[in-house]
Amino acid sequence: MSAKIETVAPETGHPKKKDSRYLSLLVVVALATLIWFIPAPAGVEPKAWHLLAIFVATIVGIILKPFPMGAIAMIGIAATAVTGTLTINQALSGFGNGTIWLIVVAFFISEGFIKTGLGSRIAYLFMAILGKRTLGLSYGLIATDLVLAPAIPSNTARAGGIVFPLVRATAKAFGSEPGDGTAHKIGSFLIQAAFQGNVITSAMFLTAMAANPLAAKLASQMHINISWGRWAVAALVPGIASLIVIPLVLYKFYPPGVKETHGASEMAKQKLGEMGPVAREEWIMLAVFLMLLVLWIFGDRFGIDSATTALVGLGVLLTTGVLTWKDVLSEEKAWDTLVWFAALVMMASFLNELGLIPWVTKGVQGLVGGVNWTVAFPVLCLVYFYSHYLFASQTAHVSSMYAAFLSVSVAVGTPPLLAALVLGFASNLFSSLTHYGSGPAPVLFGSGYVELGTWWWLGALISVINIVIWLIVGGLWWKVLGLW
Amino acid sequence: MSAKIETVAPETGHPKKKDSRYLSLLVVVALATLIWFIPAPAGVEPKAWHLLAIFVATIVGIILKPFPMGAIAMIGIAATAVTGTLTINQALSGFGNGTIWLIVVAFFISEGFIKTGLGSRIAYLFMAILGKRTLGLSYGLIATDLVLAPAIPSNTARAGGIVFPLVRATAKAFGSEPGDGTAHKIGSFLIQAAFQGNVITSAMFLTAMAANPLAAKLASQMHINISWGRWAVAALVPGIASLIVIPLVLYKFYPPGVKETHGASEMAKQKLGEMGPVAREEWIMLAVFLMLLVLWIFGDRFGIDSATTALVGLGVLLTTGVLTWKDVLSEEKAWDTLVWFAALVMMASFLNELGLIPWVTKGVQGLVGGVNWTVAFPVLCLVYFYSHYLFASQTAHVSSMYAAFLSVSVAVGTPPLLAALVLGFASNLFSSLTHYGSGPAPVLFGSGYVELGTWWWLGALISVINIVIWLIVGGLWWKVLGLW
Repeated sequence: MSAKIETVAPETGHPKKKDSRYLSLLVVVALATLIWFIPAPAGVEPKAWHLLAIFVATIVGIILKPFPMGAIAMIGIAATAVTGTLTINQALSGFGNGTIWLIVVAFFISEGFIKTGLGSRIAYLFMAILGKRTLGLSYGLIATDLVLAPAIPSNTARAGGIVFPLVRATAKAFGSEPGDGTAHKIGSFLIQAAFQGNVITSAMFLTAMAANPLAAKLASQMHINISWGRWAVAALVPGIASLIVIPLVLYKFYPPGVKETHGASEMAKQKLGEMGPVAREEWIMLAVFLMLLVLWIFGDRFGIDSATTALVGLGVLLTTGVLTWKDVLSEEKAWDTLVWFAALVMMASFLNELGLIPWVTKGVQGLVGGVNWTVAFPVLCLVYFYSHYLFASQTAHVSSMYAAFLSVSVAVGTPPLLAALVLGFASNLFSSLTHYGSGPAPVLFGSGYVELGTWWWLGALISVINIVIWLIVGGLWWKVLGLW
Repeated sequence: MSAKIETVAPETGHPKKKDSRYLSLLVVVALATLIWFIPAPAGVEPKAWHLLAIFVATIVGIILKPFPMGAIAMIGIAATAVTGTLTINQALSGFGNGTIWLIVVAFFISEGFIKTGLGSRIAYLFMAILGKRTLGLSYGLIATDLVLAPAIPSNTARAGGIVFPLVRATAKAFGSEPGDGTAHKIGSFLIQAAFQGNVITSAMFLTAMAANPLAAKLASQMHINISWGRWAVAALVPGIASLIVIPLVLYKFYPPGVKETHGASEMAKQKLGEMGPVAREEWIMLAVFLMLLVLWIFGDRFGIDSATTALVGLGVLLTTGVLTWKDVLSEEKAWDTLVWFAALVMMASFLNELGLIPWVTKGVQGLVGGVNWTVAFPVLCLVYFYSHYLFASQTAHVSSMYAAFLSVSVAVGTPPLLAALVLGFASNLFSSLTHYGSGPAPVLFGSGYVELGTWWWLGALISVINIVIWLIVGGLWWKVLGLW
């Protein structure tokens, strides 16, 4: 299964057939060339226009995937420099960005949860307490995901690496296997609960999904600052509401055959017994995790940046030997994120600096004058949300549409911070829809416990419920917070 | 053997015993604290002084190695940010540096030589042509190393990964094994020739050794610009002279028992036959390699930076499928270099910007006024050179001493570019001395063909010959080039 995780996860890209790869590549190059040679409209510098050509080609490349996202990003960086659109120092400037290193370092730190076994211990603990009934078990899995979400920015690692093995082991123990008619006993319900729970936890923290800081960074280029604490507080109430309601909905509309699961609780207790007392490394990991939480929430007051906090956490793990330098170097997902993130942030920055984004925003403001944001913004959100049927990656969706939708939302008069946050939450909630729309989806779908048609209609149903919860509960909460 | 390469290579750090690790760590922390709390001398900002404390601790950490260099560097970056000495954006600024990405990308590209088999083919080609006699064989090995040096910045990869397997195979074929009295038949001579040849090729190109661009970057902070072409041209004549003379010296003072090696030439021809015609991937690799050379030498004239050139080369290899993105992500040595290089360059930059380096330089100028550089500079070089007996890594030596020695050299009146280049060359030639002073040394020494005492006296002998060649042949050549 682990091999499968690596080859199907859309975040790192499907290896494509050669022919279709070269066709995609041709489309990307043709598009870049076309835009490049269209004369820049009045009021736009040629350099800004050329950068737009490279940016659009990069985004389309990320969507069509002739190569994995990182390779496309690297080629995009090379293109900005070799065409003279940017200097080499400008082209590489994204690599020194604090937001990017926050997420890269969080990837390194998350390795500590896996390596020390603390992640599994937390999961067994929740299973032992909540696992006497199937519904409780699903809450236990989701609680594990929630607790780990702030410090494991790979939603695929949480859902696929920590929660999924537990689902499989439990289902197996209850004689529920895919393909032999027993899937519905318990396996298919738990898979859906784990998946839909992960969709929600990913929306709840800036560091719970790799593209969240990308959204925050894009917002900051419009002078909208989303701190770690702001994101967490705004997502807290609607997030918890969704986490409570969604398993109940699944339990009602997609019920498991087995409802009592004393065995699962026993199994978890036995596993905890086998693990023995909490080891030194786990205590250190726990302490670092708590330090991260405290400093991410309150660090602003002491002038400690969230990336600095992450670096200090990593420093402690390295110094105490919980992580070795070899662990860090072999965390390929982190290096991958560094490259694609640096490319996208760099291009977005210079599109802004060279005046293209302000030019577009001004144009949009002229078009939408007079529309009421309380009508327009929900419509924009719905379009943003359901366009995710077309995307095989959250990052691709955020990098291609977030900034534009935020800019239009602000232009129609939506309070900027509200708009930035809600579009950020939507960037996670929309991944409930399909079996290919996020990193965890193909991993959990690939288990075979849930049929394709069922996956899609459950996804559609839950998308509606999530939207209603975040609109009403979220809307009230954000009013209380003064966001609108 | 490959496992051995990884664990002993000093560039990535010895895993130390726990006790001695914590002792080293204690020394580093104590030193940082001590310097931190010494009041800054008049004329030095407290921030500059605090950064000096962190910088010194980082360098001493790299030398004492409580952890691998990359981990120390990462902790150093965290320290600058969390103490408020630098902002997080300043602390991370090194990651966006062009010189650093030149070398990181060169690491990725070098993987293409190994993967496509082009590196081995070049080696067999030279062996087939030159391998009829033992002396010729040694020139063949060195020629391979020389040809690959511009695009394989890991001297360990060249000497350990490409040349060493050939030495072992050849020695084995001639019944020369370490430890059974047959080492001297041919194995020990070839090991020394390969090692000493690698020392020289590393000195010949900016991109032939990872710490060369570090030296260039440190020089650039004193406004001395060493381009790729300048380095190569200045090193060309003395480098070729050394490459011709050193094998002859070894052949005279450390002769192999077997002098005729028709079998080696035959073996190489057979291997070439087995490899079949040059594959598509090899042609592409060769084309990229030639493009890199041409643009590195002449790119300045078209305004194409050397890092841009490297990025374009990587882009071609990725687009044509010669390298996959997975190959790039798993090239741990490159990511390691990114981190330690970014930390050191960042600290050196801000020591300069905060005024500490100018303050030191001014002080030194006052002390050395009136000394003639034609006497002082050679003495400085000798001290710099032979202090390498104390270092287990070229990078540690360069990062701790290069800038200071360059600054003093310039202060005594040495032409700046000459001083920067000669100290750069010395930063490679000094690794002839010991069996631990560079990445390749422990790998080749570890083969067991050469006894420790012999390794050291040969190292000392060859250091003297190299110094004489680079002083006389180099001195004349640099006069011709107008460097002094």
